[in-house]
Amino acid sequence: IAKEVAKLLEMKAQLGGDEGKHKFVLKTPKGTRDYSPKQMAIRERVFNAIITCFKRHGAEVIDTPVFELKETLTGKYGEDSKLIYDLKDQGGELLSLRYDLTVPFARYLAMNKITNIKRYHIAKVYRRDNPAMTRGRYREFYQCDFDIAGQFDPMIPDAECLKIVHEILSDLQLGDFLIKVNDRRILDGMFAVCGVPDSKFRTICSSVDKLDKVRAGALGCNCRCWSFSEPEAWPVPTGGLDLIERLLQDPKLSQNKLAKEGLGDMKLLFEYLTLFGITGKISFDLSLARGLDYYTGVIFEAVLLQQENDHVEESVSVGSVAGGGRYDGLVGMFDPKGRKVPCVGVSIGIERIFSILEQRVEASEEKIRTTETQVLVASAQKKLLEERLKLISELWDAGIKAEVLYKKNPKLLNQLQYCEETGIPLVAIVGEQELKDGVVKLRDVATREEVNIRRESLVEEIRMRTSRP
Amino acid sequence: IAKEVAKLLEMKAQLGGDEGKHKFVLKTPKGTRDYSPKQMAIRERVFNAIITCFKRHGAEVIDTPVFELKETLTGKYGEDSKLIYDLKDQGGELLSLRYDLTVPFARYLAMNKITNIKRYHIAKVYRRDNPAMTRGRYREFYQCDFDIAGQFDPMIPDAECLKIVHEILSDLQLGDFLIKVNDRRILDGMFAVCGVPDSKFRTICSSVDKLDKVRAGALGCNCRCWSFSEPEAWPVPTGGLDLIERLLQDPKLSQNKLAKEGLGDMKLLFEYLTLFGITGKISFDLSLARGLDYYTGVIFEAVLLQQENDHVEESVSVGSVAGGGRYDGLVGMFDPKGRKVPCVGVSIGIERIFSILEQRVEASEEKIRTTETQVLVASAQKKLLEERLKLISELWDAGIKAEVLYKKNPKLLNQLQYCEETGIPLVAIVGEQELKDGVVKLRDVATREEVNIRRESLVEEIRMRTSRP
Repeated sequence: IAKEVAKLLEMKAQLGGDEGKHKFVLKTPKGTRDYSPKQMAIRERVFNAIITCFKRHGAEVIDTPVFELKETLTGKYGEDSKLIYDLKDQGGELLSLRYDLTVPFARYLAMNKITNIKRYHIAKVYRRDNPAMTRGRYREFYQCDFDIAGQFDPMIPDAECLKIVHEILSDLQLGDFLIKVNDRRILDGMFAVCGVPDSKFRTICSSVDKLDKVRAGALGCNCRCWSFSEPEAWPVPTGGLDLIERLLQDPKLSQNKLAKEGLGDMKLLFEYLTLFGITGKISFDLSLARGLDYYTGVIFEAVLLQQENDHVEESVSVGSVAGGGRYDGLVGMFDPKGRKVPCVGVSIGIERIFSILEQRVEASEEKIRTTETQVLVASAQKKLLEERLKLISELWDAGIKAEVLYKKNPKLLNQLQYCEETGIPLVAIVGEQELKDGVVKLRDVATREEVNIRRESLVEEIRMRTSRP
Repeated sequence: IAKEVAKLLEMKAQLGGDEGKHKFVLKTPKGTRDYSPKQMAIRERVFNAIITCFKRHGAEVIDTPVFELKETLTGKYGEDSKLIYDLKDQGGELLSLRYDLTVPFARYLAMNKITNIKRYHIAKVYRRDNPAMTRGRYREFYQCDFDIAGQFDPMIPDAECLKIVHEILSDLQLGDFLIKVNDRRILDGMFAVCGVPDSKFRTICSSVDKLDKVRAGALGCNCRCWSFSEPEAWPVPTGGLDLIERLLQDPKLSQNKLAKEGLGDMKLLFEYLTLFGITGKISFDLSLARGLDYYTGVIFEAVLLQQENDHVEESVSVGSVAGGGRYDGLVGMFDPKGRKVPCVGVSIGIERIFSILEQRVEASEEKIRTTETQVLVASAQKKLLEERLKLISELWDAGIKAEVLYKKNPKLLNQLQYCEETGIPLVAIVGEQELKDGVVKLRDVATREEVNIRRESLVEEIRMRTSRP
């Protein structure tokens, strides 16, 4: 027994020593992730498509801090406020991580007294939500926002926001999509007509948005406006200009000022969308509510209808990838004199889009390069490190993207293998003879062809060979 | 009196009402700021120069979350740990905002068992420091990091890091600069030779770094190695290969294993820097220590020697814009088995660089465009909104960057003024006659010349006119 105890004690001591040194968990925080170089390459593609579109529509770009004063975010998100990350009180101001880019934008406008701007902002936002990372839901995620602020003629900026969503989703080739559109004023008008008390509007909107099939009746609405399974309540909950016309002719609804305004603007919106030729993918959808408190007019949300490698049989929506709407009162909440700046904007969520593209790349076995190196500076013989460093320095100074292995005497085979692995197309080989002759041997990695190039022509030759046609 | 009291009460009621509604302060958190579109344009230029350089050296790119598990950052920053922002404990994991990009990089390597990578990472980091924003010191600021991880022959990656700093600072044309280089092993060796106890090394390094003129004697070093004002202590504190050689011949110092290693590597480093042709701006500087705990070998720091509109008379260093060094032990602190991955890297701080460029742009009155719009779609007559929307939709779909005023009937003068203000070079004007003739009037904003272009040739014409030669 004594022997066994001694053995165990020894084992424990060994383990204890190890544990003491490295007891922490090696992970990223819950709901977050790293991006590897390959993932970054895909992410860059998505960003490029989105930024190109935003710039095509004449947007400027701004940036704001990752955290705001806690009070800046207070009272803007309704029930979702509980998902805001607060910073620890370490003395000084109370801070919170931004929950979206819209409230910081409104704070920026009020603070700088800007009444007229079209800007985009691409940055990470933070929500202490239940993550579902395989479905692209994270606690730290990117939003790509485009907003138009200013007093303009109705629905022209609103229509442009929808055009932008249409352009980006088409451009990214994510398969079929649908943009649902509604208007907070129509919803509010309907609730009013049905006798729902004002105080319950926002709660209902929030619930409708979250549960999709909730019965508003359970929340204080006693009519059947939301009973979509009972078609006699309203004609149909989704449609286009036809549905708008029918609702405009509804005797009860058209008497409500808010609903009438909303329906009138919705009609105008659809006229502009027709001019843009995009009504085919837009649906006026009475069941769309969107949870955020600050919307005041048009609201919309884009969903992908099918996903690659979809295991679900029916072509149902598999997730929202963009959303937005009009928020005419938010800037006024920040302005000391309550001056309003009407705003409308759209937010593209790239995490879901990114997941789809990542899966597609993996399925296609497409080889993605994660560097742009044009040439590897190599040597076939030993003792040429100095010559390699001299040559690569010349190339760098001429703007050529070049690498060298960090070895004194690397084998030629290893240098060529490195090119194969990383996709470097050219190798510039220095050797005793080449140095004497004032040339460099340039090897094409794909064809294995080698030619001697005069050293003073090397930069030009590399540029020519690696310029895209 | 009653009248006066009533008056005052009324005033109070008014003020109270206002205060209740908008009592919060309209600002960004202490030590942070927004970037306006104009500032973003300058920032993009700086990022472009830096990213171009990193890619020229074959780096991949990664991204990590803005916060890490608190324990990931624990014990990595020495005294500076008190500057870390913690998140509030809202249930779940304890989190902290990243303090730099180096520790998250090491965590990433250990977590993914990567032993060999050359990557860059550009992202914001957070320090609860005393901000001095006019001098470019913020609590939220960007770091642009380039690191090489892997077991390689000595000093080749280290030399490349210095080459990168040299390239970027030259490229940005910030005026004269100096890159100070030292080695932790030389410092440690010197302290050991002078009888400073091991436990004080790091404290001294940290203090030397921060106070610049501190006397190490006060901290436990009783020799005069740090008494720079008394030149008999060491030959000279800064220099190049000459100083290295003299220190190597110092009988006391050369007996210390660490110092000898450090000096040997420093000599090798200077040989490589000579091949790169950049020793002119590099100074071996015994007074450089750098505060962070994790450095194990070469350390360096780049300072700008003169600033534009400099009010100081002497050409002294006005601020550090880049720093870095070798940290061979950091990844091992994260690996469950303590496996080491040698690393060396550099971090470029853009806030100071950005301040200088911003001042320069303001002084030069250079007009910076904040959008890339190629053409404004306009009309001279009323009732042509629909036609403008149809045309701009065609242009967007063809990839042309185009804008339209969000007015039903804007005046031509206002439309032209908008182009002048925002730098849009072309105006495409639709009118009754043009529509009938199947043409669009294309106006050059600068020359005021107008020509009719057939509608089907418009896209090509705009492309041609706005392509840079």
